[in-house]
Amino acid sequence: MYRTNTCGELRLADAGKEVTLAGWVQRVRKMGGMTFIDLRDRYGLTQIVFNNADNAELCEQANHLGREYVIQVTGKVAERSSKNPSLPTGDIEIMAGELKVLNPSEVPPFTIEDDTDGGDDLRMKFRYLDLRRPSVRKNLELRHKMTMEVRRYLDSKGFLEIETPMLVGSTPEGARDFVVPSRMNPGQFYALPQSPQTLKQLLMVSGMDRYFQIVKCFRDEDLRADRQPEFTQIDCEMSYVNQEDVIDLFEGMACHLFKELRGVELKRPFIRMPWAEAMKLYGSDKPDLRFGMEFVELMDILKGHGFSVFDNAEYIGGICAKGAASYTRKQLDQLTDFVKRPQIGAKGMVYARVEADGIVKSSVDKFYSQDVLQKMKEAFGAQPGDLILILSGDDAMKTRKQLCELRLEMGNRLGLRDKNKFACLWVVDFPMFEWSDEEQRLMAMHHPFTHPKAEDIPLLDTKPEEVRADAYDMVVNGVEVGGGSIRIHDSELQAKMFEILGFTPEKAQEQFGFLMNAFKYGAPPHGGLAYGLDRWVSLFAGLDSIRDCMAFPKNNSGRDVMLEAPAPLDQRQLDELQLAIDLKEK
Amino acid sequence: MYRTNTCGELRLADAGKEVTLAGWVQRVRKMGGMTFIDLRDRYGLTQIVFNNADNAELCEQANHLGREYVIQVTGKVAERSSKNPSLPTGDIEIMAGELKVLNPSEVPPFTIEDDTDGGDDLRMKFRYLDLRRPSVRKNLELRHKMTMEVRRYLDSKGFLEIETPMLVGSTPEGARDFVVPSRMNPGQFYALPQSPQTLKQLLMVSGMDRYFQIVKCFRDEDLRADRQPEFTQIDCEMSYVNQEDVIDLFEGMACHLFKELRGVELKRPFIRMPWAEAMKLYGSDKPDLRFGMEFVELMDILKGHGFSVFDNAEYIGGICAKGAASYTRKQLDQLTDFVKRPQIGAKGMVYARVEADGIVKSSVDKFYSQDVLQKMKEAFGAQPGDLILILSGDDAMKTRKQLCELRLEMGNRLGLRDKNKFACLWVVDFPMFEWSDEEQRLMAMHHPFTHPKAEDIPLLDTKPEEVRADAYDMVVNGVEVGGGSIRIHDSELQAKMFEILGFTPEKAQEQFGFLMNAFKYGAPPHGGLAYGLDRWVSLFAGLDSIRDCMAFPKNNSGRDVMLEAPAPLDQRQLDELQLAIDLKEK
Repeated sequence: MYRTNTCGELRLADAGKEVTLAGWVQRVRKMGGMTFIDLRDRYGLTQIVFNNADNAELCEQANHLGREYVIQVTGKVAERSSKNPSLPTGDIEIMAGELKVLNPSEVPPFTIEDDTDGGDDLRMKFRYLDLRRPSVRKNLELRHKMTMEVRRYLDSKGFLEIETPMLVGSTPEGARDFVVPSRMNPGQFYALPQSPQTLKQLLMVSGMDRYFQIVKCFRDEDLRADRQPEFTQIDCEMSYVNQEDVIDLFEGMACHLFKELRGVELKRPFIRMPWAEAMKLYGSDKPDLRFGMEFVELMDILKGHGFSVFDNAEYIGGICAKGAASYTRKQLDQLTDFVKRPQIGAKGMVYARVEADGIVKSSVDKFYSQDVLQKMKEAFGAQPGDLILILSGDDAMKTRKQLCELRLEMGNRLGLRDKNKFACLWVVDFPMFEWSDEEQRLMAMHHPFTHPKAEDIPLLDTKPEEVRADAYDMVVNGVEVGGGSIRIHDSELQAKMFEILGFTPEKAQEQFGFLMNAFKYGAPPHGGLAYGLDRWVSLFAGLDSIRDCMAFPKNNSGRDVMLEAPAPLDQRQLDELQLAIDLKEK
Repeated sequence: MYRTNTCGELRLADAGKEVTLAGWVQRVRKMGGMTFIDLRDRYGLTQIVFNNADNAELCEQANHLGREYVIQVTGKVAERSSKNPSLPTGDIEIMAGELKVLNPSEVPPFTIEDDTDGGDDLRMKFRYLDLRRPSVRKNLELRHKMTMEVRRYLDSKGFLEIETPMLVGSTPEGARDFVVPSRMNPGQFYALPQSPQTLKQLLMVSGMDRYFQIVKCFRDEDLRADRQPEFTQIDCEMSYVNQEDVIDLFEGMACHLFKELRGVELKRPFIRMPWAEAMKLYGSDKPDLRFGMEFVELMDILKGHGFSVFDNAEYIGGICAKGAASYTRKQLDQLTDFVKRPQIGAKGMVYARVEADGIVKSSVDKFYSQDVLQKMKEAFGAQPGDLILILSGDDAMKTRKQLCELRLEMGNRLGLRDKNKFACLWVVDFPMFEWSDEEQRLMAMHHPFTHPKAEDIPLLDTKPEEVRADAYDMVVNGVEVGGGSIRIHDSELQAKMFEILGFTPEKAQEQFGFLMNAFKYGAPPHGGLAYGLDRWVSLFAGLDSIRDCMAFPKNNSGRDVMLEAPAPLDQRQLDELQLAIDLKEK
């Protein structure tokens, strides 16, 4: 037995007990004839005291301990004379009687503190040391708690967790697959699943009724800050349900998680916002509703007054930033620069301040009478002290997206995006298809298995671009944390969908024949949803990136710099797989 | 809303209620002026009644329903006149008022019954229909319950479930890896983990203290009945523990599972049997202790009496089958044939019957006096009516393994291997190394991270083949359901281990440098265990193969015949990966 207690559990009531602790040396301090050691483990920190007067030899040993040494200490729990109220164990200390070094440590390459001196690359290379920092460890603890609560909730609702295979078939529709060569079937490949979508639908066909799985998924995409080649989904599917049934159940799960993990009681039902409204009011299918600042469209008011930029625009819209009329010219220039960045791409920005007396002063005063500007003010419901920011452009959707970025930026600047406030909603009534300039065809906005709205089915033949889907996304604080849809369960409707998406019947059969055939043997109506676990955890942890809620993430080149993976294979392995590397000239 | 109730929940107390059910048509029967339908879902079976006298049109519709049609029925719950006590809903039936076909079904390729007419290949191709059979569905339900209970237990013991990556580095030591080409790092490959062994050790270095994960693992091996290319481990690791701590905690988990899932109270502690004893008494490192029939060694008694087979043997041993003296000559010939099968490889078998008067009659009577045979009888403690079976050979280990097979066969024949009886034990004190004729070097019996027994460490330099390890397997009914070890946490001892295993320091550094380096920064003593989830479920379900406790297993060629995976890739995908197929001539 290495320890009687952890470093986080001893209290004043334990005073007098003989205990043995084991852990890492966080800090060694010498004061007078005493040596103090902060001993750390996952559970906390306990102060160990070595008294030179009592045992000079032991104290001398303690003086030679380095940071991150692993030690075992036996001694008596004693009340501290100067207590540390910020530490759960701060009322006590251990008067050491025995000390054993279980493993020494070289000096770690960065400090094991929340506020570390280690850069990102170094911390990733020594991730096993980075994970010792309490702030990082807490994210993994939160992740564990979240998956436990998800499972408890879904189990209580009759869901079965069913494992679907990781070695499946490649489906070129969608993102790029990671593939796995098969040695037993030379020249053939498995793919790692981008999601268990078709398999969970087959489980519904098989009568499993309510399925879930917390499951690794894989996408071979170029990476961004919040993307990883492998990520984890809370994947769910239910039979004999309509959209409202699914939304209701998973809204319940979200509320359960918020309550258990953050102590937050959310008001139900969440707002259900049609996709078209979200685009019109916020320029986004994942609006951040922690603050208002809805878009106001100004075509009627501002067009036709001789300002050619607006006169030629297909869209003019703005936002009203409460109390920001005091923004300086410099701040306004920064905002103009912000919207003109290539990632956003606006041509310029018009602003207008509502002064104390109600008069509107704008950057385009020479084109507009105060009368027109007052009408504009009223359209925003703007008050003295408010700042109005306006964008325009020749593509309404693009301009709305630019205005969305500006709105979020103003939200940040005005402190309206508090990480401890949560605004949840469902975006519903998504379009079924979106046009792809690259592919020159309609693409499924969610995926090809999504059920069109019953009342829009007649439009499939005539105006497919107007068809809406029984699809829904859950959005929290401007982040899409999950989404799903009611699925097609009719093999003919599914075949029609593939036809609209440009599949020949042969290609559809080749790639999704197993699913369409399954639908011929009594497929029940079904639908579901998938939550991104990594995003949920990072939301609850207040992180900007999903990386720090994963134990061993990969960098932006898809590399694990700790394991040094990927790496070249032995020739013997390539031979067994009957593969050759065929590097292109650069 | 598709249903008010499931097909498994209505009882006599619900009589009179108006309900709506949805499910699959199991059976349609016409009797007199009535049509009866058994409606099935995951939760059960409910009888629906259509009365021709009440509604001839509706009854006519019902008569046209086929097997596996998905229907929705609304009607009144009524008490049955002839109740069916074998069905939980057998006291009631639904008097149908409305009927809607939600989805028709073609005639399924096999009957959806526990006792189906579908062959293995057909059922695998239509696995989504096979899973509708209650006996198969129950295995998945059991699997769900088991993982829930495992998580509850480990969570209550302070374990954190931490996800380790699926895209890791390839480690040629051990079984063959599945590999994944990296598009972003051309010419380089990830590997899918054979187990998260090194990663969970790094989590211990990172201070996570108690880790577990229910995780997919991958091995590219030629398949057998109880092997699958992907399988699931309950993977666990703990810090600051010795062997007894680990064994105690996971014995507790096993008891928890047996109690919750099978209602079986196991006696603790389980037997701890040294490996050497298991080999000597049962010829196996996973003895089936549901029955005795221990080996008795007979070298002293039977050697040197002129029977050259025994006189030249390095090992002579036998078992005593209680009450089997009545075996006919034909039965004994079958047993001889059994041990002579090439998979077992014995040269022959000697038998001896103890007759009613105590006299021993053997197949080698001409070489042995009754006096010697009586000594043999005493060695077995054999009684009148018992049958003694003896094997010999020039390699003790090989002969013991043959005798092990014979013992298990006799256990089967005598009905001693009841699937509802459970005999659990720990096999401990495994040898650290075993000699590989193929590689002509010592190989790690468990893996290279296993800690040698402290008292055997001096033998590492002198007689490594005699070193025992702090390794342990849990065995239930002759199946190894899990195993683990205390790990090395000292980088020098780890380096020495690699040296004994024939690694150059450079090779060891290249492959396991990340782990040996981690050990330099304060690695705590640690150890753990991994259970095979698939084997646990099949054990609890009474299955012979792990295949039926997986939703979508692969066949013996590693193929998913339902998904038709693996399959050739598009050339575009190969080009992106900068790979070429390089098929060898056959």
